[in-house]
Amino acid sequence: MERQIEINRDLAGAGEEWAHKNREVLREHGVTMLNLIGSPGSGKTALLEKSAGMLSGKMRFAVLEGDIETDRDAERLRRAGVQALQLSTGGACHLSAQRLHTGLQELDLGSLDTLFVENVGNLVCPVEFDVGEQAKVAVLSTTEGEDKPAKYPALFREASCTVITKTDLLPHLCFDMEACLHDLQAVNARKPIFRVSSISGDGMQDWIQWLLAQKAGG
Amino acid sequence: MERQIEINRDLAGAGEEWAHKNREVLREHGVTMLNLIGSPGSGKTALLEKSAGMLSGKMRFAVLEGDIETDRDAERLRRAGVQALQLSTGGACHLSAQRLHTGLQELDLGSLDTLFVENVGNLVCPVEFDVGEQAKVAVLSTTEGEDKPAKYPALFREASCTVITKTDLLPHLCFDMEACLHDLQAVNARKPIFRVSSISGDGMQDWIQWLLAQKAGG
Repeated sequence: MERQIEINRDLAGAGEEWAHKNREVLREHGVTMLNLIGSPGSGKTALLEKSAGMLSGKMRFAVLEGDIETDRDAERLRRAGVQALQLSTGGACHLSAQRLHTGLQELDLGSLDTLFVENVGNLVCPVEFDVGEQAKVAVLSTTEGEDKPAKYPALFREASCTVITKTDLLPHLCFDMEACLHDLQAVNARKPIFRVSSISGDGMQDWIQWLLAQKAGG
Repeated sequence: MERQIEINRDLAGAGEEWAHKNREVLREHGVTMLNLIGSPGSGKTALLEKSAGMLSGKMRFAVLEGDIETDRDAERLRRAGVQALQLSTGGACHLSAQRLHTGLQELDLGSLDTLFVENVGNLVCPVEFDVGEQAKVAVLSTTEGEDKPAKYPALFREASCTVITKTDLLPHLCFDMEACLHDLQAVNARKPIFRVSSISGDGMQDWIQWLLAQKAGG
């Protein structure tokens, strides 16, 4: 067991070094990196698609797409006119700082001010790893149920904001928004919570303003 | 790196031993164990709640609930009259065979013929570990989108069947069922696919028949 802990420390140390390198490269180019984390199908790609149109002319951004298999998300974003690069994780449940570094090397960072990372759909593992991002963004869909902040608190505690997606489906769901907000505030009292629909565009404006503020502060 | 691989082999070996122990205990008591795996909010607990009513008098079963935090799912099931035991994973992204073994020791296995495991909501990590189950069941909700079998193929390849949940929401979604079934068949051609709504009960009968057949063959 001692040996296992020692090895885990070694691995964590290597990850921290790569995260540090990423931070250096991003700072050098004045790029703010935001790491989107949410369940599979929580609407991360749709949120980026919708945001892309609203950020046009206000932000120069690209997306690093982390997935286990396929480049479908990067293709979707490219169809929306977004510069998107697919990074396969080779079966791993999260994007590592090292894998992400290879992505940074393929992008023309000088032409960007913001870089979105869409992590592998997973509420647990991507939270545990610093990849050199300025902020983590929690993405939670109404269709997942209001109990997720209480059941998976680490993400919502770590994230700089939470985006509750798919609000257009609320009339068809038994989703208790009040309970969800209560649990979110219990784990992360002061961080912004955005309620959006990437279909109707409802609530998107506040999220876009938050994004633009990150760029300015980056 | 060699040392890391060696340690991972040691850990995998220990997991296999616990899985073997679980299998022995279950066989001794004639209990079939089914491991439900799906995203957070994919409707695993709701499926078990709905199934419980339909299995009454036909199956003697209990549920082991794996969660990182809270015992909300076990409470929900107990309200539905189900014998449910909550197992905290202590932050881990999946239930280990060893953690599950502690659950087996707390149950009166002699009174059961079937044991459901509701794993931590995660499409990746729980797939990699044998916990001694007879079969894995993939749970995919329509609200997650039809692309999940292609993006997370390991689960759908390993699972003995797939349950597509939340079909009552289809009229409100852009879910391409044909594409989903096509991708499912590409990774796992011959396994049953059930399309159900735990709200309306649509499609539940075939899933219940499959469950009863597992018991008979167990």
